Amino acid sequence: MSATTTRFPRAILFDAYGTLFDVHSVLAQAEQLFPGHGDALSQLWRQKQIEYSQLRTLADPAGSHYRPFWGITLDALQYAARKLGLPLDTVGEKRLMDEYACLSAYPDVIAALRTLRERRRTAGAAQLALGILSNGNPQMLDIAVKSAGMTGLFDRVLSVDAVRAYKPAAAAYALGTRAFNVSAREIVFVSSNGWDVAGAGWFGYTTFWINRANTPAEVLGIAPRGTGSGMADLLAFIDTLAAPEQP
Amino acid sequence: MSATTTRFPRAILFDAYGTLFDVHSVLAQAEQLFPGHGDALSQLWRQKQIEYSQLRTLADPAGSHYRPFWGITLDALQYAARKLGLPLDTVGEKRLMDEYACLSAYPDVIAALRTLRERRRTAGAAQLALGILSNGNPQMLDIAVKSAGMTGLFDRVLSVDAVRAYKPAAAAYALGTRAFNVSAREIVFVSSNGWDVAGAGWFGYTTFWINRANTPAEVLGIAPRGTGSGMADLLAFIDTLAAPEQP
Repeated sequence: MSATTTRFPRAILFDAYGTLFDVHSVLAQAEQLFPGHGDALSQLWRQKQIEYSQLRTLADPAGSHYRPFWGITLDALQYAARKLGLPLDTVGEKRLMDEYACLSAYPDVIAALRTLRERRRTAGAAQLALGILSNGNPQMLDIAVKSAGMTGLFDRVLSVDAVRAYKPAAAAYALGTRAFNVSAREIVFVSSNGWDVAGAGWFGYTTFWINRANTPAEVLGIAPRGTGSGMADLLAFIDTLAAPEQP
Repeated sequence: MSATTTRFPRAILFDAYGTLFDVHSVLAQAEQLFPGHGDALSQLWRQKQIEYSQLRTLADPAGSHYRPFWGITLDALQYAARKLGLPLDTVGEKRLMDEYACLSAYPDVIAALRTLRERRRTAGAAQLALGILSNGNPQMLDIAVKSAGMTGLFDRVLSVDAVRAYKPAAAAYALGTRAFNVSAREIVFVSSNGWDVAGAGWFGYTTFWINRANTPAEVLGIAPRGTGSGMADLLAFIDTLAAPEQP
């Protein structure tokens, strides 16, 4: 370990959907099925997916209304199509769900993850573990990681399925501190979702918001520790944290 | 008490915002401030208001991130204006919040509540109590009930503020069974919000969904016990429940 770096941060945890995987890469398929409505369907599908996950956990944090994320994703698609008056049949539904199973990664993701792994190799194995902490159920995440070409880039792929509670429930975020056996403050939690960054911040993580779409900050009384427009900004942020404290 | 009625239901509990009070009656004011954008602002304001309340409770059901609904309503307005790129100054903000404080009732509400109270008077005081169970904080609800001309129509006006947990948390719904000292099944819970109807159903209430906007049912694996397009349908539903069991 270099004498000029501190041991902080110890790990980086990434949200998956919307952060690593581009959930709107289904847009092209949706637009092909429903010309002129692909964007609206894609947006509402995503909004309802998040809403349904949160409602089920809020109604019972112990998980009696829990349904795996793949099922919630299908429920949300069906609602969104009905709300928009789009005639979604089982063939169209399967095409969109298949597309969702194999989302593209954002173009800046793979190279940045490789850079972070290279730093880890240079610095020693105990430094800078990489992980995913996602609402997706394990099978979904497994397929998504493989199809996006991220196999072997993460030390841990954590699914909230283990606690049957969706983010921003504390039980979901606690999977990260438990997996890496370090305090929340020593973990950088990265998400493109404003609500996820707020939840992770409330839990105690050092948060970084990748604001890809240049949307305004959520008004939730808690700001991310760092913000940027993509993975390059995250790398710069990590450098700042790893720099020695000024005397 | 008439010999032809059963003791079921014992009470009717109404959601307030979106069910009794028309949250989109702020639309005219919003449209005046931002011509061509009133509807979008009104819709996004409402969506974020609900989202923020749920996020705060989900992150900690014990209430450490709780913020009274009036504050959340302001937060949501500020976010919605920024997201839509609308230059909301403090004067405009005050005008919209003042409007929100004194929402109109839907046109069918007052007469229906009077009908229900009249039935109660005929049937005896123990029968068919009327209440509100709302996310709104007590001061908000007090002003809203008065300005909508509903003073004296309810036996109880219950605010989730008492438990610092927003619907659909079970602690919020439990305020109703505690206040009326009857089982959830004996209370008809009425809401225009699909997520609220689902949450109340999960809790055990006999639910009625007033689907004013003719939107599709939420795909949450639980259906309301009754559905209608307005208060007249609710009255008919109550009649059905109160009818004697067939031998």
